This record gives sequence, structure tokens and C-alpha cells, in this order.
Amino acid sequence: MKVSTESAKTTQNIASLFLINYLIGKMIPASTLVKLKNIVGQGNFLDSPEDKIAYSYDGTQLISKSPDAVLIPRSTDDISKILTLANEDGFAVVPRGSGSGLSGGAIPVENSVVLLMNHWNKILEIDQQNLTAWVEPGVITATLHSTVESLGLFYPPDPGSSTICTLGGNVAENAGGLRGLKYGVTKNYVMGLEVVLPNGDVMLTGGKSMKDVAGYNLRDVLVGSEGTLGVFTKILVRLMPKPETSKTMLAYFDKLSDSAETVSDIIASRITPAMLEFLDNTTIRCVEDYAHLGLPTSLESILLIEVDGRPSVVAEDADKIIELCKKHNAREVRVASNAKEANKLRAARRSAFAALARVKPTTILEDATVPRSEVAPMLDKIKQITQRHNLTFGNFGHAGDGNLHPTCLTDERDSNEIHRAEKAFEEIYTEAIKLGGTITGEHGTGLAKKKFLEHQTGLAAIEMMRKLKGTLDPNSVLNPGKIFDVKPRCEGPMPKNQDQLKRFLEMGAFT
Amino acid sequence: MKVSTESAKTTQNIASLFLINYLIGKMIPASTLVKLKNIVGQGNFLDSPEDKIAYSYDGTQLISKSPDAVLIPRSTDDISKILTLANEDGFAVVPRGSGSGLSGGAIPVENSVVLLMNHWNKILEIDQQNLTAWVEPGVITATLHSTVESLGLFYPPDPGSSTICTLGGNVAENAGGLRGLKYGVTKNYVMGLEVVLPNGDVMLTGGKSMKDVAGYNLRDVLVGSEGTLGVFTKILVRLMPKPETSKTMLAYFDKLSDSAETVSDIIASRITPAMLEFLDNTTIRCVEDYAHLGLPTSLESILLIEVDGRPSVVAEDADKIIELCKKHNAREVRVASNAKEANKLRAARRSAFAALARVKPTTILEDATVPRSEVAPMLDKIKQITQRHNLTFGNFGHAGDGNLHPTCLTDERDSNEIHRAEKAFEEIYTEAIKLGGTITGEHGTGLAKKKFLEHQTGLAAIEMMRKLKGTLDPNSVLNPGKIFDVKPRCEGPMPKNQDQLKRFLEMGAFT
Repeated sequence: MKVSTESAKTTQNIASLFLINYLIGKMIPASTLVKLKNIVGQGNFLDSPEDKIAYSYDGTQLISKSPDAVLIPRSTDDISKILTLANEDGFAVVPRGSGSGLSGGAIPVENSVVLLMNHWNKILEIDQQNLTAWVEPGVITATLHSTVESLGLFYPPDPGSSTICTLGGNVAENAGGLRGLKYGVTKNYVMGLEVVLPNGDVMLTGGKSMKDVAGYNLRDVLVGSEGTLGVFTKILVRLMPKPETSKTMLAYFDKLSDSAETVSDIIASRITPAMLEFLDNTTIRCVEDYAHLGLPTSLESILLIEVDGRPSVVAEDADKIIELCKKHNAREVRVASNAKEANKLRAARRSAFAALARVKPTTILEDATVPRSEVAPMLDKIKQITQRHNLTFGNFGHAGDGNLHPTCLTDERDSNEIHRAEKAFEEIYTEAIKLGGTITGEHGTGLAKKKFLEHQTGLAAIEMMRKLKGTLDPNSVLNPGKIFDVKPRCEGPMPKNQDQLKRFLEMGAFT
Repeated sequence: MKVSTESAKTTQNIASLFLINYLIGKMIPASTLVKLKNIVGQGNFLDSPEDKIAYSYDGTQLISKSPDAVLIPRSTDDISKILTLANEDGFAVVPRGSGSGLSGGAIPVENSVVLLMNHWNKILEIDQQNLTAWVEPGVITATLHSTVESLGLFYPPDPGSSTICTLGGNVAENAGGLRGLKYGVTKNYVMGLEVVLPNGDVMLTGGKSMKDVAGYNLRDVLVGSEGTLGVFTKILVRLMPKPETSKTMLAYFDKLSDSAETVSDIIASRITPAMLEFLDNTTIRCVEDYAHLGLPTSLESILLIEVDGRPSVVAEDADKIIELCKKHNAREVRVASNAKEANKLRAARRSAFAALARVKPTTILEDATVPRSEVAPMLDKIKQITQRHNLTFGNFGHAGDGNLHPTCLTDERDSNEIHRAEKAFEEIYTEAIKLGGTITGEHGTGLAKKKFLEHQTGLAAIEMMRKLKGTLDPNSVLNPGKIFDVKPRCEGPMPKNQDQLKRFLEMGAFT
């Protein structure tokens, strides 16, 4: 989502804006940068203009901000020292994995350094007796998938970006994905964390015991804290036995309502597919144009359905699902007969985002989520809202668990359309909340949705979150301003360069 | 667990101790009690000596303390007012369900009222589309089980006390139970909470969306917070389709090591039973003496194994398990052929606690838990420790998830044996921690185990917990002193009655 401070970009003189930012924005003093360089070592300290630009944005559209430096810590002790210094010298630390996040969690803030964790990419241990793995936070999710699968094990969380995203990022955002309906989300698989707290303390929470109720459940509040409460240095995940087999199907529907009824009927018949995904007509057309999979572009909806488990159950479930699809007028149900075909069918869904992103210069992908009974009403509302605002939207997502991805195809240079898109998303969130849903199912709140958070959670919850942040990070050094606004660190006299700004204004520099 | 302040009881003059407590203990002034009576109404305010005694203890051995009054709130607003008054007038509130807890979570503290929640016993909604239920916190767990099962649904968490414990208590303690291995614990089924916070604010957190990452995950830190961070007034739980069928087996072993190897082999063969429970010889003998189930009392170990799910899978898994039991020298494997027989087999395990509790006047049931690979080494250690201290222990528990119940059969009047039992449990916790386990798998920390918590979690985690408590409950009004010590509420001058105590001491009243 676009935030209001950024909308100025398209309407004001960008050069002037940079100048204002430079003048009023606090920056880390050179003496502190030298201390940071001494902590991580010369080769792990980046501050060239190119580096700063490379780490000024993440997967979120329309928002960016340069850090004052980029640090590559090589040990937990480095991170502890950096956070200790942040409290002493007063700067912010923004942890970053692959930077594929979609809510602005890894975007630098004023007066900040980026803490780059994607070099921490070792799988430290796979414990086949306890079915656990210790990993470093920079391990790519798909690498963990393939590594444990080669041992007959299974790590279920499967975000759409699994080939590029890191496990540290997954834990920070409590990432969801395609297998959420049956297997849950990242939170359900995190058993332990080694974490550097905002004050530099190193804490280990959780462990290999399947049951543990000693003290407060700190682990689960760190999961999904979006880099604001701690920097993960080791992650212990729970594994499962790999499902013995699976069956992948693609069902074609001429009418969206038929596909929605099929989804309801599958759930009502007590089948829990591993995947139950949908694409709408706009998305189908874009995917076909992009990937040439032979999808009929006249379809209103396609469902990707996968069942997994023991062979006898998979066969039973697949037969029942095909029957339900046909009952609800599916034009065709394609069933993969081997792994290669299954991958081809999955590609229809996996390529949705990439395919939509080609159509227009700016692609705003959101994740309004509703209780699964409300998927059809929510899709109706999205249609009404986007038509009223004269916008092009593709819709796809996780139909089985209510996690939709309404996606606006737009152009950030068209400020009028961007403004209409902002209005539309605001209305979409309001409808999701009305239907008992959430503004974000799996992407996080970050910068992009913080202005909508209170509307969903209410003031008491926001106050509790603020208190939690305030008490664990009193100087707001760790990823401040994400999820909700924090009080500025310095509430004392105006910084000196405000005078300079005042002089510039008197000189008419920005008129 | 016995706590040190209580051991005085058996060695000192009890009357004197009560006098000291009365003199130094702060009590709620009459004027505040009148205000409380006005909030809840005359009929919902109990302060007779009998009532105070009835609510002075819970399921935990050796610890008790009278409250100053017992309140039966009839609305969320009542609870909010009580907590607001607690902050104004300075007293503590101790929430209570059925009082079946085993770590002292519901035991009153100095200067406190008990908040009785077991009257809140309505199932408010069962949503068959979204597979959720809204319940009040006083609903008995087994009542929810039978109600949803009659609709073809399933609420998996299954604490041993399910026929008497409440869901509010389950959520407060993050209760585990017999189905933890396959289905997880209470935490995994709590989707939403209406909660009155320590300051009297009412907060709703979570909802029916299967994915929701908006803001911090407050819900999961409230779960398992042992009544110290909020009073639950409504609970939204996730349900599942009821497993189509199940098969229950009881396997008899002459050697404990054979049963341990069977457990390892079942897990290694990627079968996940719904229950995988064990009893040792002491427990078997007590159960047989109590329930007359025809168990051979010479056995070193019995495994209760249950598999559930689709008929084809259940049959396959049961056959494989029987084969594994026989491979590891099981003397016999009894397989239930119907529900009635299954209940009879389960009774061997379900009656373990009751059977052990008959043997000696005092039964201290603990829940040291280890990663499941460490169950056999842990049982060895428990045997060595209890023999060295010349104690009678029965061992049973959840072999499949490493959650053991070493149970000391003793007599609280024998202070020497109680002292040895305390030493033994301390050593058992130390061994559990050494093996990567926890001091409590499912009972909570409460009063009983708070002195061991830091040894497990480390100082950084305890400090984080204290900060969390301190910031959400700055006046320590909600169940203070559970999990960890809190700073006393009044750090000002000594209360007046200290002078009185000093005078009594000078008079030689306690010599």
C-alpha cells in the first residue's frame, strides 16, 4: 500500500522533497558510522550510494527510503554490539532477509542502518528423531523444503515467494502460503528461537519439547513481530513426515459462483485439501498470456486443488472432489498423472503474481482475508468497489482459508488512479473487517497498513502493542514505525538543521 | 510442588504461623469489600469462613491460602469494574475456573479476592461453516467435546481432567493432554479471545480468519499466561472434522526398555498416533488395585496406543503398530473391537492419577517434559534419583510427545520425606533441562515451579516476562506472584501492623 507521505512524490517536485528529507531528517553521525564499521569490519560495512539505493526498498510498491549504511553482521555478538550501540548513540536498526516482503517491513526508516541477514544461510541440524531443524535466518524457504524432503521429511509453510524468501523473514512476518488450509502457517512450525533483543541481550526461547508451558509464551509474540522486537539468529522448526503421495487438479468454471460453491462443498464434506486456490478471469487471462499453459481465457474462475497423504485417502478424496466440481458445473477437471504434470498445473497459480505484474507498471498486491464462509460475499464486494472506482483488479488467492489477494494493476505516475486505488483498498479493508476478517492475512502490517490497524483491532489492542514495544525497546531502536507509529526518539529541542530548513524556506527554495 | 514457606507448617506451631500471617499480611479493608459487594450484588459475594476455605486451594498439593472474599461476576462489565477498583484500592484478583490446576494458578494470594468464572458455562455458537465455536470460559472441556462430536465435529485438546476442568482454565494454562502428539495443545485451537485486561479495558483479539497477521500476536501470549495478564470472558476455538474412526490398543511389556524402543520405532516409521501413552510398573499395580481391569501386575510397562482417521489408514496403522509391538517383545497386544472396549482400555491410563492418589495421603504429580528422543534416558534418570532419595514414585504420561508425569506418593506430615521429595524433583527438573526439556509440559509454572523457571529460560527471558507483566499490570492486581515473583505493591513505609508484630515478638509470643 501507498502511504500518504509518499503520495507527495507524484505531485511535488521530487528533488525538493529529497532536499527537505535531507535537511529535516536525522542522519547517523560519522563518528557512529565509524564505530559500526569497527564492529562488523570494513568488508561488511556498505555505504556507497549504490548500496544505499539497493537496500532502500523491498517488495512493497511505492515506498522507499535510503538507509545511512548497510551492515553484514557475522556473529550474534556483532548484532548484540550493534543494538547496544543503537541504544547508546540513538539510531535505528532495520533487519532484512531477501527483501521480498509486501508490507514494507524491511524498508529503512530515518536515521537507520539495514542489518542484512541473508548471509546467515546454513541449515545447522536436522534431527530425524525429534523431527526438527535448526536453521539460520537467511536460509531460503525452498532450500529447506528440498533438503528435508530428500530425507522423507516435510516443512509445510509455503509462501508464494518460497524460492527467494528467507526463513527469518517468514518468521518475522508469520508467513502463510498455499498450504495454510491444511497445515497452518509459519507460527505453527516455530519451536524455538535464538534472538537478540532490542537492548542487545541474547535470549533463547522454546526448544525441542513438543509441550512446554514454562513462563509466558514469548516465542509466539516474537513470531510475526515484523523485526520490531528482536533479531532472529537461529530458528528451530518442527518438521513432519513427508506425505506419501499427492494429487493435483485444476478445475475450470464458467461461473465464479459455481467455483465458490464447490469450495464450500469441499469443506462441508470434511475434506481438507493441502491446497485450494483460485484465480479469477483477469488473472487467468494474464497467466495465459504470460505462461501459455493452454488455459481457456473465457473462464470466470479456475480452482487449483491438491490433496496429499496416504495413497488410499488421496485417491478417495480426489474422486470425491472431482465429483463435487462436476456437480457444480465445472467445464473440465484436469488431473495431473505425474509430478511433472502437477508442477505444470501448479504453475497456473504460482505464476499469478508475476503474470499480473507484467500488465501495468505498478502492481499493488494485497491480502485482505475473511472467514472462509465469507469468501464469495467478499469477492462480490471487491468487484463492486473496483468497478465503482474504475480500476483494473486481478483476484486470486487461498480460497480454502479465506486469504484473498486482490491485486491492483496501475501506474504510480497516474496520481489520480493511485488515489482511487487507495480509496478502493480502504473500502476493501473495511468490508473485510465487517465480515469478521482482517486487513492482512499473511503479508504483515508494516508501513503499508498501519493506518488501518486500529480500525480492526480496536484501541485497547493497539495500546497493548505499543506498551509491549515500549517496554522491550524503550529507545525505539529496532525497526521503529512499523506496525504502528512510535513516539519520536528525541522529544527535546528541535535538531539544528531545522534552522537551516527555515532559512531555505525563507529563501523561497521550494516555491 | 511444595514451596519453602509452606514447609514451615509441619515443623512450626501452626497457630503461631496463622497469627503471623494475620499480623503481617495485608488484608482488603472493609470499605473496599463493600464496594465489591455493590459491584457484583449481595448474592454473588461470598465471605463466610466456609467459602474462604473452599476457595483457598486448587488441585496443587501442599499450598493453600484463604482469599478475603469470593466474587461471582455476572457480566464482563462487572469484571472490568472489579479490576478498575483493584487498581484504585490496591488489592489482587485471582481468576478461578474449576480449580483443578496442578501448579497453584488459582490459589489466592495475600490481599486478594477470588474471581469465580465457572458459572460462565454457555456454548454461545457453533459455526459449522467455519468450524469454530464461541464458548464462555466456564464450559467444561468434556461438555464441549460431546457437544461438537454430536455434530460430527471435534475439539482435540484433551487434558486428563477434561470431565471437570474448564476451557478458561485450559486457555490460561495452555493445557495439553493425551492427544498432544498428533493434535497439539490448547494454544493450537484458540482463534480469538474476549479478555478483560488488568486495567479493566476490554479487548477482543483474533477472530474467525484462519490467517491473520495484523499487529502483534497478543492472543498467543494471553494463552498460557496463567491468569496474570487478563480474564477471559469469551473464547473462540477452532474445531476439526471428527475422525471417522479410531482403534485403541493396550500393549503389555515385561521390560520398560522394550516399550521405549517400540515408541521410538512407531515415530520412526512415520506413524502419528492420536495417543501414545505409557504406565510403569508402580502405576500398573495401583491401577489394577483400584480399577480391577485384569492388568498383569508383573509388567514393567504398558502402552496405550490409539490411531484415528480414515478407516483404511486406521487399519493399516494399527496393523503396523501391532507388528512393531511384537517385534519388541510385547507379551500381548489387546485391541478394542468396539467403543465400549476402547473405553475400558483407555481406563487403564485415565485412572492412573486417581489410582496413585489412593496409595498415600499426599500425591505430588509433576510434568517434567523432554524431547521425545530423550524419554528413555529421562526415565532412567528419574529411577536413579528416586531410588537414591528412597522415595516411592509412579511414572506415567504421554510417551509420544515426551511429556512425563513422575508422581511422588508421600505424606505431607512426614517432613523428612517431603524434604527428600523436594530434592528429588529439583534434580528431575535439572535433568529435564539438561536433556533439552522443560520443567513443565502442560501444568504451568504457577506458584509450584516459579523458583525453577529462570534455570530453564535464562535471565533475559525472565526479565522480558517481568517487563511484559509490569507494563500491562503496573499495580500487580491480576494473580500476582504466579510464574515469577513481582515486586511488592507497596514499597513505602512498613505497614502499621508490623509494629504490632514487633511487640508480639518482644513479648515472646512465638517462642
